[in-house]
Amino acid sequence: MSEYLLCPRNLSFELYEVHQAHALLERERFAMHNRAAFDETINRARRIASDLFAPHYRQSDETEPQLVDGAAVLLPEVRPAVEAFVAGGFLGATRDHEQGGLQLPHLITQACFAHFQSANVGTANYPFLAIGVAGLIDSFGSPEQKRLFLQPLLEGRYFGSMSMTEPDAGSALTELTSSATPQPDGSYLIRGCKTFISAGDHPLGENILHMVLARLPDAPAGAHGISLFIVPKFLVSADGSRGPSNGVTLRALLHKMGWRGSTTATLGFGDQAPCTGYLLGQPNQGLSYMFQMMNAARISTGMGATMLGYAGYLYALDYARHRRQGRSPSGTAVAIVEHADVRRLLLAQKAYVEGAFDLLLYGARLLDDSQTLTGEARQQARQRLDLLTPVIKSWPSEFCLKANELAVQTLGGYGFTRDHPVEQHYRDNRVNAIHEGTNGIQSLDLLGRKIGQHGGDSFNQLLQLIDDTCSRSEAFASLQPLRAPLQQLQQRVQAVSRSLLDDEDSERALANSALYLKVFGHLVIGWRWLEQATRAEEGLARGNPADSGFYRGKLRAARYFLSWEVPGCQHELNLLETRDDTCLGMQESWF
Amino acid sequence: MSEYLLCPRNLSFELYEVHQAHALLERERFAMHNRAAFDETINRARRIASDLFAPHYRQSDETEPQLVDGAAVLLPEVRPAVEAFVAGGFLGATRDHEQGGLQLPHLITQACFAHFQSANVGTANYPFLAIGVAGLIDSFGSPEQKRLFLQPLLEGRYFGSMSMTEPDAGSALTELTSSATPQPDGSYLIRGCKTFISAGDHPLGENILHMVLARLPDAPAGAHGISLFIVPKFLVSADGSRGPSNGVTLRALLHKMGWRGSTTATLGFGDQAPCTGYLLGQPNQGLSYMFQMMNAARISTGMGATMLGYAGYLYALDYARHRRQGRSPSGTAVAIVEHADVRRLLLAQKAYVEGAFDLLLYGARLLDDSQTLTGEARQQARQRLDLLTPVIKSWPSEFCLKANELAVQTLGGYGFTRDHPVEQHYRDNRVNAIHEGTNGIQSLDLLGRKIGQHGGDSFNQLLQLIDDTCSRSEAFASLQPLRAPLQQLQQRVQAVSRSLLDDEDSERALANSALYLKVFGHLVIGWRWLEQATRAEEGLARGNPADSGFYRGKLRAARYFLSWEVPGCQHELNLLETRDDTCLGMQESWF
Repeated sequence: MSEYLLCPRNLSFELYEVHQAHALLERERFAMHNRAAFDETINRARRIASDLFAPHYRQSDETEPQLVDGAAVLLPEVRPAVEAFVAGGFLGATRDHEQGGLQLPHLITQACFAHFQSANVGTANYPFLAIGVAGLIDSFGSPEQKRLFLQPLLEGRYFGSMSMTEPDAGSALTELTSSATPQPDGSYLIRGCKTFISAGDHPLGENILHMVLARLPDAPAGAHGISLFIVPKFLVSADGSRGPSNGVTLRALLHKMGWRGSTTATLGFGDQAPCTGYLLGQPNQGLSYMFQMMNAARISTGMGATMLGYAGYLYALDYARHRRQGRSPSGTAVAIVEHADVRRLLLAQKAYVEGAFDLLLYGARLLDDSQTLTGEARQQARQRLDLLTPVIKSWPSEFCLKANELAVQTLGGYGFTRDHPVEQHYRDNRVNAIHEGTNGIQSLDLLGRKIGQHGGDSFNQLLQLIDDTCSRSEAFASLQPLRAPLQQLQQRVQAVSRSLLDDEDSERALANSALYLKVFGHLVIGWRWLEQATRAEEGLARGNPADSGFYRGKLRAARYFLSWEVPGCQHELNLLETRDDTCLGMQESWF
Repeated sequence: MSEYLLCPRNLSFELYEVHQAHALLERERFAMHNRAAFDETINRARRIASDLFAPHYRQSDETEPQLVDGAAVLLPEVRPAVEAFVAGGFLGATRDHEQGGLQLPHLITQACFAHFQSANVGTANYPFLAIGVAGLIDSFGSPEQKRLFLQPLLEGRYFGSMSMTEPDAGSALTELTSSATPQPDGSYLIRGCKTFISAGDHPLGENILHMVLARLPDAPAGAHGISLFIVPKFLVSADGSRGPSNGVTLRALLHKMGWRGSTTATLGFGDQAPCTGYLLGQPNQGLSYMFQMMNAARISTGMGATMLGYAGYLYALDYARHRRQGRSPSGTAVAIVEHADVRRLLLAQKAYVEGAFDLLLYGARLLDDSQTLTGEARQQARQRLDLLTPVIKSWPSEFCLKANELAVQTLGGYGFTRDHPVEQHYRDNRVNAIHEGTNGIQSLDLLGRKIGQHGGDSFNQLLQLIDDTCSRSEAFASLQPLRAPLQQLQQRVQAVSRSLLDDEDSERALANSALYLKVFGHLVIGWRWLEQATRAEEGLARGNPADSGFYRGKLRAARYFLSWEVPGCQHELNLLETRDDTCLGMQESWF
């Protein structure tokens, strides 16, 4: 199955020709590695993903988690896959050696994780949530909490969930009503209901640590009155041994269109028995702690969306190369990849998924820079990642979903059957525009907060980087037709952004934020494609015939994105520029 | 459930304000009807759809047809629904009174059928196929074939299938290999395999008449060597009584992403026992017979796609009016319909589904005109319907699917669960860009055949009709900003079409036919929206306060389509104009 996971040539292009993974070896934190070690780790991920994650992808869709005797029962194949992930060291891929981690860059780690997401995004979700919870406890937990909870997480004995959403508080998270009442022993009694909780129950480990957002009795209303609690499924004794159940009830499992391999639960806290939680960090800081993990979580969401699109593309491409149907204009029977319209379907998919994949690795590289560079460069990397996070999360969820739609179309009627995986990719991917903050929320985050942050510094630095790429691309005359539409888009995005930021009527300025997210996203992906195209020209210039087709494909996909997709944004910029109020002015009673 | 089927106010607007259904009453064929009779029939359809089709929509997805002992077993709820459809007279809705039909216009019939498709597209498919088969036998059958086969179809005792596709001949239908060998008694022995056969097996009636495309022994290769046969599941004696099985094997049921309520079968003909078929009409005319039914079949596909989008929109709208989440800019808790971005999601859905619905009824009206007008007007109507058929089939399958995607988004996480129907609408609708000729095929049909047909007369007449609508819209100054982008689009489509038709390099001219289909479709839907807007202004001018919100909503949706969607086509026209060869020039080895 590994041929559909991720194209190895593209991965090495991304890591070593675009994102300069070898340059990371010069940093102290990564000095013990070398390229062979990076590649060996990636190959290990590929092997585990191929051998243990991919084979039950379809089955985990057909056999959703079942609620039996109050607990979620999973497909048996999930456990050995997760155990291999743990045994492969991936839980601690980015952690320090002295914590038992691999101390790898995020760039390499994301390249590994991409394989698991491509193979089976539902099963991958269980260890991914454990990694997220470990990150929270590591950052904000007390020494005692780290001793009791962090260590078993890192060993793959405990798992975790992010218990944020409530039935009436999803996008409006700050309206949540779960409560935490202090107990004499310093712990808290937790009461409330959480829903849409990924990995909210399963039998994979000894315990599940729910990270629960709740309000203290005296907490102020709104965002600044929310605290974060560790609520274990089973209580843990001081010596680390597992105690009795802790009053967390699995009220229901949600039945979804896709992502069925991953448990999505409604949990009750304190329904029938007292439920004990432990405050993480300071009171009323819960949301800010959660948001500090959000960049990483949203990279994960974006990578998941990207890899579903990527897996569908590789499958559709293989199908199109082998399925014979119709004749060429000269009358010979041909594989469908020879038809112009099928090439369009495939080229669009390639442009979307390889564009998104490049951005996701760029995001991972920024995460590395924000942790291993120093001074201003470090701060700039963190701020740039903040700026790009809404795009990283939302762009793949829209355009790699589109890629999945086109993969189904490539297979025709067969694509609509469950005999091929492309329909499952499509269903699975639909969630990504919704969870981890809907794309509507992302658009408000981008235009209402991120663009103007730090006096617009991050945005201006991004524009400068785009200029730099444009300048470097001038070394190749062939890239002029690709550069021109990007520069036109950049100039207008700059001007329109400025005018939106200066608009005193913020409701009007934000009303079309969805359009802004789209054009800003296309600017970023267009930039990444010009960067890829420049690297491809450099590669071609090295003259290795075995690489020539690969580089020409890169140039063609770049051309597709920059000449078929990017110029279309001008119209959306007109709407933004004129503060078009077609949607804003629509009245409820007119529908 | 009827509140989600179809907005009655919009239906009466379409029938009596836009498409002038009452004018049909002046034609001899429809003179026995009146508006009350039209409305009564529509209400009957609505009631049956609501009471008997809608309730098992979800269940027919959860319980797909099962293959048991060589036959397809359906959900028990399907039978009473289909029986009520038959008892309601809908099998013969458009047929002559003397055949036992209701002799209704297609316009009214499609308004009825829309309700069944909105309620349960899978169940509706069984009687719809019987209607299609009856149409074929009525048009091309011998008197004996009509006696034996047509009458029981019209009575709802027999059902039917269109057995065209083979495992290796789908889009390339002319490559089919099923064979028909003449027998001494004038019948034929049929051998072959057909797949993706909708309603290919089920226990609803006494018999199933498969309309099978096959080749005679001496048939020429290609499209002109294909004949059409009636192949009953059970042989029929000369007295009409049902005889033994006829060697049609249900090899498999296909398991699909959606449309699960409708059986999709792989059938073997002559696998284990001899299989007898009866030639319909003349030898080697099979494809042309099938294509004469195609306009009607593609209207049905387009209406199915439209109604899935429409049902999703109405559900999402209702949800958005009741779900409270977040606060208005002034801080009050609000229903989500108050958020600008949710209004955008809903307004886009409204523009897509009501635009498509208007076009579908326009197509039905053209079918009426092509049968009940005389002379040149009759011919023009038929040719215009030919021209518009690729748009009628494909535009809703793309943009009403987009509406479904936005309906899921409107519900957020809940939209991704199977507790709400919007995810099923989305899955069900995905097939419509594929079956009845993929959208790629439609684009070649439009640009490669239809636009230039009859020396371009149909196309020129369409442009004239758009001019007429523009002229009438000039009565309302408010419509100028809606008219301007339509006229700009029209002028360029006209110029670009001319240059594509004149291009001597047909491969190059057709390479971007998908873009052409998109912009031509937007021209047509934009025209329909300007027509609707003009009618809405006329309605507003009548001054009935109860209608004011409805008309203002129409104007707003028209504005959305004409100012948010239509201008974006200019970029695609640039690509067509310059014969951009980005996709055409992509090589297989570069992927």
